[in-house]
Amino acid sequence: MSVTTPQGFKAAGVPAGLKHSGAKDIALVVNDADPRHAAAAAVFTSNRFAAAPVRLSREHIGAALNGFTVPRAVVLNSGGANACTGERGYEDAVAMAEHTADELGLRREEVLVCSTGLIGALLPMDRVTAGITNAVAELGSTPACAQAAAEAIMTTDTVPKQAWASGGGGKYTSGAMVKGAGMLAPELATMLAVITTDALVDGPSAQQALERACEYSFNRIDSDGCMSTNDTVVLLASGASNYQPNPQEFTAHLTSLAQDLARRLIADAEGAHHEIAVTVTGALTEEGALAVGRGIVRSNLFKTAIAGNDPNWGRILAAAGTVPTEVAPFDPDSVDVLVEGVMVARAGGLGEPREAVNLAGRHLALTIDLHAGAAQATIWTNDLTHDYVSINADYSS
Amino acid sequence: MSVTTPQGFKAAGVPAGLKHSGAKDIALVVNDADPRHAAAAAVFTSNRFAAAPVRLSREHIGAALNGFTVPRAVVLNSGGANACTGERGYEDAVAMAEHTADELGLRREEVLVCSTGLIGALLPMDRVTAGITNAVAELGSTPACAQAAAEAIMTTDTVPKQAWASGGGGKYTSGAMVKGAGMLAPELATMLAVITTDALVDGPSAQQALERACEYSFNRIDSDGCMSTNDTVVLLASGASNYQPNPQEFTAHLTSLAQDLARRLIADAEGAHHEIAVTVTGALTEEGALAVGRGIVRSNLFKTAIAGNDPNWGRILAAAGTVPTEVAPFDPDSVDVLVEGVMVARAGGLGEPREAVNLAGRHLALTIDLHAGAAQATIWTNDLTHDYVSINADYSS
Repeated sequence: MSVTTPQGFKAAGVPAGLKHSGAKDIALVVNDADPRHAAAAAVFTSNRFAAAPVRLSREHIGAALNGFTVPRAVVLNSGGANACTGERGYEDAVAMAEHTADELGLRREEVLVCSTGLIGALLPMDRVTAGITNAVAELGSTPACAQAAAEAIMTTDTVPKQAWASGGGGKYTSGAMVKGAGMLAPELATMLAVITTDALVDGPSAQQALERACEYSFNRIDSDGCMSTNDTVVLLASGASNYQPNPQEFTAHLTSLAQDLARRLIADAEGAHHEIAVTVTGALTEEGALAVGRGIVRSNLFKTAIAGNDPNWGRILAAAGTVPTEVAPFDPDSVDVLVEGVMVARAGGLGEPREAVNLAGRHLALTIDLHAGAAQATIWTNDLTHDYVSINADYSS
Repeated sequence: MSVTTPQGFKAAGVPAGLKHSGAKDIALVVNDADPRHAAAAAVFTSNRFAAAPVRLSREHIGAALNGFTVPRAVVLNSGGANACTGERGYEDAVAMAEHTADELGLRREEVLVCSTGLIGALLPMDRVTAGITNAVAELGSTPACAQAAAEAIMTTDTVPKQAWASGGGGKYTSGAMVKGAGMLAPELATMLAVITTDALVDGPSAQQALERACEYSFNRIDSDGCMSTNDTVVLLASGASNYQPNPQEFTAHLTSLAQDLARRLIADAEGAHHEIAVTVTGALTEEGALAVGRGIVRSNLFKTAIAGNDPNWGRILAAAGTVPTEVAPFDPDSVDVLVEGVMVARAGGLGEPREAVNLAGRHLALTIDLHAGAAQATIWTNDLTHDYVSINADYSS
C-alpha cells in the first residue's frame, strides 16, 4: 500500500539505463483526479548547493503557493543527482519537467522533479526522456505500479519503503514512498519522499501541515549528520475523497505518516546494527533539548561505542557538554543519563554500574535528563559501524 | 629533546598500576629554576563537563594571573580521566596536587593537575600517591627522564610525542610533550600538552601568547569532531635563559612549536591512513573560512571517501553548503575545489575528471576557493577508516 492507495493517483517505475545494474531508475507519481481540487506542497534541503531539480521544483511550488498552476505530477530518477552541474544541469531538469508534461498533457509548471545519485555528473538525457515516455505508458493505480515506483528511487536502500494511513476516522487516505539510507548516504543517496492524499486541502494548508510534519519526523532523524543537496519531500493532494479534514487533524495525520517513513529510513541506515532513540528531557526549551540531542547523535565516539555494545556514558556527557550554555542552560552536576532504563550517570557523576546495561537488542533507548526545565525532544539515530565505512569508502565512484 | 631541553626543568615518568598493561602512567614536569622568574599559563577545554583536574588547574592558573602563587609543577596521569566523578573526584584532584606539593616542598597552588583515560571512574588514589612519590624520586633533566614523562601520558597514542625549538636567534629554548590521538579519541584519550621554556616572560604575556598559539595549532586540527572533558595545554616558563623575547616573537615561536605538536597528533590520529590539509581561500572573513573548513572536516562522508581514495568533490561541496550564509557568504556557482592540485569542481560545477587525481600519498591537500573575499584558513584532519571504528567500538571499557 503506497502512493496509489489514496483515490486519484497513478504511479509507475521503469528501468531507463541510468543505473549500471539495469534496475528501475525512473519513477512517476501523477494526480489525475479533478484538477480543480488539486493541491501540492513541498519541503526542500537547505543545502546551499541545492541540486538543479530542487531549484526548479522550488520555483514550481512557489508559483503554486502564489496562486498559479498547481503541480500534479512528480518525476523522479535515481542514478544521478543532477547536483553541481551548472546551467546545463538546470536545463536538463527543465527538460525532464517539459517532457513529462508533454507526455501527460500538462504544463511544465505542473511537474516537480527529484533526482538522486552521484553529485557532479550530467544525466544521460536521451535515456531519461525515453524512460519518462515508458513510465507514462506504464502508469497505473495497482499496488504493483506503486511498488515499481518505490523501487525506482532506491540507491543504497536495501528495501523499498512505503507506508499509508487513513485519517478522519476513515474518511480519507494518504500513502507514501521514501528512499534514503542516512540523511545523506554515500554520494549515491539522498532522502526523497512523495506523499499522496485524497483529502481535500488547499495549498497553503497543505504546505503548513507538511512543514510541521517534516519538523517532527525527517528533521528528528540523524544518521550521519550529513545534509544532502537533493533532499525533497513532496505532498500531492487530489481531494478525491471530498473530505476536508480540519488543519490540526490533518497535520497530526501527516506527522504520524512521516514518522513512520522516518523510522523506515533509520531502520535501513547504512551499515547500522542499532537504532537508537535519544531523548533529552528536563530542558528549559525544546530548542535546547534538540541541540543537546543533536550534539550526542553526531558524536562518532558515542556511535562507535554503541556499535561495540558499550554503554559509554562518558562519551554521551562529553558530547552534551559541547552545547553552549546560551543554547541549552543546565548544570552539569545535575545531569542524569539512562541507557536502556539503567541510570548509568547520576547528577553528572557515577550511577549504576555499566555492566547492568544490556545493549544486545537492535532498538535502544537513551535518556538524558538535564533537570533544567520541562521541555523535551527525541532524535533517532543509528550506530557507526564497519559496514558504514565499507559502504562509503570502499564503494568506488 | 623535550620538556627538559630548556634550562631549569626536570621530568619523570613512572608506572603506578593505573594502566592494566603495567606501562608508565604518572608523569611530572617541574620548573626548579629561580621561582622569582617563574611564569605559567594554560588553556583548557571548553567542555561543560570539564574534568575535576581541569577545574582545579583552572583555579590555580586564575590565581596566578591575579598575582598569586605561580604554578611550577604539573602532575599528569593516564589510566583515568577523573571526569564526571563529582565531589569525590574533585577531592582526589586536590589530593594529587597536595601530595605532589608536599613531595616537592611547594604549596598546593603551585601544582597543576592533568588526567586522561576513562571518563566516569574514580582514580585508585593509593596507587596515584605512591606513583607521585616514586616520580619525584626519579626526577631528572636527561632526555631519558623527559621521554619517560612523554610515555607516561600516552593512551591510544602509538608513539610518544615530543618537540623543541629555539627562539630569539638561539637565545632561549622551548620544549614540549603532547598526547592524544584525535581531539578526543576513545574514552581513553584526550589532548594533553606541557610546554616548557627558559624564556623570561611574565604570566599575562605567557597566557596571551599561549592562547594565540593554541588558536592557530590545536584549534586548527579536527580528527573526529569530538571535544574532550580533559583537554589541557600548560606552559611553564623558568626564565633561566635570562632572555626576554618581545611578545610578537615569542608568540610566533610558541605557535610554530604548537603547530609541530598538532601535526604529530594528526599523524598519529586513530586509525588514520591519510592526513589532509583542508584550506579554504577567498572567504570574506577568516571566521567564515574556518566555518566552511570545519563543515568539511566533520563530514563522515568526505572522510570515508578519502579513506577509499575517492576524490568525491560532491561530498565536499555538500558539506560546505551546510554552512549558513550569514556565517560565510559566498555564491555556490562560483566555488572551485582543488584536490591535490587538480580542479575537480569549477564554479560550483564539473571541472577536471576525478580520474586525474592521485590520492595514493599519505599527505593530501584540498583547497576550496569561495571567490568571496581575501581571507583564508587551513584545518588539518584525517580520514575515517575501519581502524577508527575498531579502536573506538571493539575496545571494551
